[in-house]
Amino acid sequence: MFRIGFGIDFHQLVEGRQLWIGGVNIPHHKGALGHSDADVLLHAICDALLGALALGDIGIHFPNTDLAYKDIDSKILLQHTYTLIKAKNYKVVNVDSSICLEAPKIKKYSGEMRKVIAAILEITEEDVSVKATTTEQMGFVGREEGLVAYANVLLQKS
Amino acid sequence: MFRIGFGIDFHQLVEGRQLWIGGVNIPHHKGALGHSDADVLLHAICDALLGALALGDIGIHFPNTDLAYKDIDSKILLQHTYTLIKAKNYKVVNVDSSICLEAPKIKKYSGEMRKVIAAILEITEEDVSVKATTTEQMGFVGREEGLVAYANVLLQKS
Amino acid sequence: MFRIGFGIDFHQLVEGRQLWIGGVNIPHHKGALGHSDADVLLHAICDALLGALALGDIGIHFPNTDLAYKDIDSKILLQHTYTLIKAKNYKVVNVDSSICLEAPKIKKYSGEMRKVIAAILEITEEDVSVKATTTEQMGFVGREEGLVAYANVLLQKS
Ligand SMILES: [Zn+2]
Ligand SMILES: [Zn+2]
Ligand SMILES: [Zn+2]
Repeated sequence: MFRIGFGIDFHQLVEGRQLWIGGVNIPHHKGALGHSDADVLLHAICDALLGALALGDIGIHFPNTDLAYKDIDSKILLQHTYTLIKAKNYKVVNVDSSICLEAPKIKKYSGEMRKVIAAILEITEEDVSVKATTTEQMGFVGREEGLVAYANVLLQKS
Repeated sequence: MFRIGFGIDFHQLVEGRQLWIGGVNIPHHKGALGHSDADVLLHAICDALLGALALGDIGIHFPNTDLAYKDIDSKILLQHTYTLIKAKNYKVVNVDSSICLEAPKIKKYSGEMRKVIAAILEITEEDVSVKATTTEQMGFVGREEGLVAYANVLLQKS
Repeated sequence: MFRIGFGIDFHQLVEGRQLWIGGVNIPHHKGALGHSDADVLLHAICDALLGALALGDIGIHFPNTDLAYKDIDSKILLQHTYTLIKAKNYKVVNVDSSICLEAPKIKKYSGEMRKVIAAILEITEEDVSVKATTTEQMGFVGREEGLVAYANVLLQKS
């Protein structure tokens, strides 16, 4: 038995914040604004996992009004989300994701992101894809005001 | 035999229109502009179903120049789309969707949306996911000028 | 064994360029700006195929700084991408795609696009879906500054 899931997440990019993407800290003069560490990629993956099993969304599980999640490492959120998937007797077949941002270039960090994500989801790096693209200078991503991540997952009943 | 489908839909939010999302009427000072009832979520799901079997898109099946579809309840469009899927001997495994809008909060309506969609597609509510997110005030969604819905479906040959 | 993949691609629309979408040349006063022929749909499909098997992304395989890809026909890029999929012993089950653009109307070209894509991926036209939608005049797509394509693929181990 298979299920598909989809997630999308948005964060503003602002001065004075760290930039966490895919569980990796990326040197940049701006960081993502949010209640948690604002890791756009891990949030999109959480939403895709929750969506595949119709378990709600990240805003329901980890409300941005809850102080427990203030500045939290989103790897903890992904870990918790994955326990919900396992509790339903599903495993992850593969994850494909795309990050839309104008700068910085994140290609050299994608290997490390895949390692982090694969370890949490108990799959191999070959089952986790992290792609990146600019929006060709268009829109809020093109103006470097923010970034967007998309994630698609395929789950299978164990 | 499995097939995946993807749909995306956009509508402007304007004063003087009702706001229908996922077959549910949501109290708000703005509504979605469109030829039909402009239900962004049901339209995205229609497109995902049509796309999975390469049956065209919602604009081909229900042209916005056809008076027959003026102000039509999009549940009728989803119902009709589903008959096309069934006619091809496919059933829906699961639907995952995301709605991007700044306001209002629609979390409390997602249960009802899932019920409506599941009934039409002859699946259970546990096979239908409706997630919601803001775009963190960015872009036309962030300015409350419009809303966007994404839908992913997994179909299986009966 | 199944795998899912997702791709998204963006290009600016400018005067003095040809408009290639899905391997088809579409008459229009603007064309897509890019290093290659800037075929937004074929690029999204390449990324979805690469993503499904975690083989990187189009920017890694076909860098826009490499003169070898200057003005290249993106059908060649898709062909090359598909050889990578085959080398991993996967075949394409189906492709679903959506193109977001305000103008021109591309509905009448979608049949030809599907033929081109199906031929390269060694599937039938019934396994390739090309949908189109406007963004209802919103954002950079609505202002006809650019276009976006989304692609979802399902792969199966041969
Ligand atoms: Zn987030
Ligand atoms: Zn619509
Ligand atoms: Zn491109």
